[in-house]
Amino acid sequence: MRNRKRGFHASTLEQVAGNGLLHRRALLGGGVAFAGALTAGPALTSAAADALEEPEWSLAPGDVTPVLQKPSRFEAKVVRTLSNPKGDARTQHARAPLHMLEGTITPNPVHFTILHSGIPDIDPDKHMLVIHGLVKQPLKFTVDALLRYPMVTRKCFVECGGNSAPMFSPEPIQGTLQALHGLVSCAEWTGVPLSILLDEAGADPAAKWLIAEGADSLAVSRSVPMKKATDDAMVALYQNGERLMPGNGYPMRLLLPGYEGNMNVKFLRRLKVVDQPAMTYYESRNYSPLLPDGKAYKFYFVNEVKSFLTRPSFGYSLKGPGFYEISGIAYSGLGRIEKVQVSADGGKSWGDAAVEGPVSPQAFTRFRMPWRWDGQPATLTSRAWDDSGAVQPLRADFIAVRGEAKKVPNVLGFPNQHYNSLTAWAIDGSGEIKHVYV
Amino acid sequence: MRNRKRGFHASTLEQVAGNGLLHRRALLGGGVAFAGALTAGPALTSAAADALEEPEWSLAPGDVTPVLQKPSRFEAKVVRTLSNPKGDARTQHARAPLHMLEGTITPNPVHFTILHSGIPDIDPDKHMLVIHGLVKQPLKFTVDALLRYPMVTRKCFVECGGNSAPMFSPEPIQGTLQALHGLVSCAEWTGVPLSILLDEAGADPAAKWLIAEGADSLAVSRSVPMKKATDDAMVALYQNGERLMPGNGYPMRLLLPGYEGNMNVKFLRRLKVVDQPAMTYYESRNYSPLLPDGKAYKFYFVNEVKSFLTRPSFGYSLKGPGFYEISGIAYSGLGRIEKVQVSADGGKSWGDAAVEGPVSPQAFTRFRMPWRWDGQPATLTSRAWDDSGAVQPLRADFIAVRGEAKKVPNVLGFPNQHYNSLTAWAIDGSGEIKHVYV
Repeated sequence: MRNRKRGFHASTLEQVAGNGLLHRRALLGGGVAFAGALTAGPALTSAAADALEEPEWSLAPGDVTPVLQKPSRFEAKVVRTLSNPKGDARTQHARAPLHMLEGTITPNPVHFTILHSGIPDIDPDKHMLVIHGLVKQPLKFTVDALLRYPMVTRKCFVECGGNSAPMFSPEPIQGTLQALHGLVSCAEWTGVPLSILLDEAGADPAAKWLIAEGADSLAVSRSVPMKKATDDAMVALYQNGERLMPGNGYPMRLLLPGYEGNMNVKFLRRLKVVDQPAMTYYESRNYSPLLPDGKAYKFYFVNEVKSFLTRPSFGYSLKGPGFYEISGIAYSGLGRIEKVQVSADGGKSWGDAAVEGPVSPQAFTRFRMPWRWDGQPATLTSRAWDDSGAVQPLRADFIAVRGEAKKVPNVLGFPNQHYNSLTAWAIDGSGEIKHVYV
Repeated sequence: MRNRKRGFHASTLEQVAGNGLLHRRALLGGGVAFAGALTAGPALTSAAADALEEPEWSLAPGDVTPVLQKPSRFEAKVVRTLSNPKGDARTQHARAPLHMLEGTITPNPVHFTILHSGIPDIDPDKHMLVIHGLVKQPLKFTVDALLRYPMVTRKCFVECGGNSAPMFSPEPIQGTLQALHGLVSCAEWTGVPLSILLDEAGADPAAKWLIAEGADSLAVSRSVPMKKATDDAMVALYQNGERLMPGNGYPMRLLLPGYEGNMNVKFLRRLKVVDQPAMTYYESRNYSPLLPDGKAYKFYFVNEVKSFLTRPSFGYSLKGPGFYEISGIAYSGLGRIEKVQVSADGGKSWGDAAVEGPVSPQAFTRFRMPWRWDGQPATLTSRAWDDSGAVQPLRADFIAVRGEAKKVPNVLGFPNQHYNSLTAWAIDGSGEIKHVYV
């Protein structure tokens, strides 16, 4: 009787698209048995519930409280993956485990980082920020001085321009979200609006650019349009409530909401107001995406609208048919996420996902979709729209413009950037998940 | 000339309340020199800015990227303070360093915790949640089963009912925010709405209470009104994007937005649907605040509207007159923060602070106020209003109803709870800060 009672009754649940995508109202009332398939054994009686066996951790006092808590030892797999774990004299990438996270915040310990010459060990009492160039009065700021300034707090993603480079492969690379898209994260940042500092220095209104320079040994430098600098740029001092992580720019970084990560210069030490871009290495060579005809974008600053499913995703498997929530992340450097659609049949039909608010601009936005898997092959994917009117391009359209790369052994070798087309997961009859293109 | 040019011109800045509280529009345009007082030396020339001395960390590659990053060694003081660091057989409190944090998120490593019998080391593959009692069908959930359920993400504070107990002292105790109010934190939580699970179990609509029980060795148990359980309660699995910290209830806890921390039962193992409260130790003895006439509240579940200033605050000192931003936190268990006022003259006059959005219900809300300190004694305080119509009570009104405690050596010994009146900081002519009552 119990088995008949439990489990979805597909005929009574409204589908919004093919292969079992359900209307959100399926979740409300009606005594739906969501995970019925998981509890195949005999029904639990109330007496049995009262007489549950005591696990060992219920029998004796537990561990002592530490000054800094850390995740359970059972979560030891939730770490960043490193491209250069020994710190050889080249760039070090640390990818965020997006497939194992939920919500919209990336915890600081696993926020992605890219360091081109390691993490400088900066004494905040000796670090200085200078604003100079086309200004009435050059200014020099200590960290303590900036901590007296007006601040703002905002949630914002930061994404490497080279994130998702494996997606340019002609054949889909079998990897987790962490491997495919792990160079993006989202945090709540607090800092001083750059416009206030530029105003205090008396920046020349005719000046069109800023050159931002870091205190790392490479002095990573990027040119920033003055319009962005005075619009919503921030000298960030705090990340998710605490001071910046060393790998994210301690004691201060430039934050340019929606602009590619490398421009958000870390260990910020100098801002020079100038009348033309500097054409530094990282803007003329390393972050100017190539086009199939051999030309390259001069600049490609904004990370455009994008989404992907985090659960289910590669690395998981489905344990039998029944209800699953599909969960994913969408974001856009151009504004707020307005709509996300999900498909369970590889793009043939689409249903609107629930977009969780409050939706902040240039921030991770969580979307969710109820799904009843019937045990047959299905292909899950998502597509996002933002309030600037931009839509995540279909792969065929994207590749037609931007091209594909030849497959090379090291995914870091993919020479292209700013991928923002779809990501799709094919689920076979046994519940195994593969990365596919749709 | 530079010294004349820099620094606030008080006559041209609009004050909104006594002792230098400024209108927010002072921050916009006009070339205000915010931290002018800090840069007393000769003016920086552009040539000098170009020829800045290279600090040692700019001269050689930095450290290797770790899989989990942690704060800079220069932030070693940003840790929790422990009431029972050796883990003796009594309660362990860990207070959050609120005076050193910004924004609205408390990072997981420093989220406050209270453990009554240590931190159980729970294997998530063996942990079970049972729903039973007045239900059509008792249900048993593994963590893996719950991970298939529909989830929601929301920012929410959790506060111990006993937070701020030192504020019942007849004389103001000289301590940091961490010592006075450190038993509150705010995180982004993700989990399964409890209403969905109760609906699946077929909870009796006439049942009025739930008894929630933890898997710790004390089996901490609390009665929860069914209305709260079905309104916005959650079985939380994620905290700021990652799985719960062990001290915050790994692998799952009850989250009751706005209700005192102890009711948000950690290590949640059993929910029994019943028709009357259980009157457990933690609701009949330990969290029923005493009144001056010897009576006690039967229940006092909600943490009411509250605010305090985090910067400046006790533990800091002001380095000379000039501009400072006043920054603080407001929150209410009854809803959204609607207004915060700040006073610099101990409550004689008040100005509206800027309340930073998006403002979420039952969540830390950051407020800010521009302030020009003239170097004379000043007393800073704040007062918050929420959208339920509740206002933070003035101290005299609060004490008249709730009483004061006799001073005892151990602040934990204060027998009263649910303090939500004002906190004030007196600044003397040398910039030193003391805790005072206003």
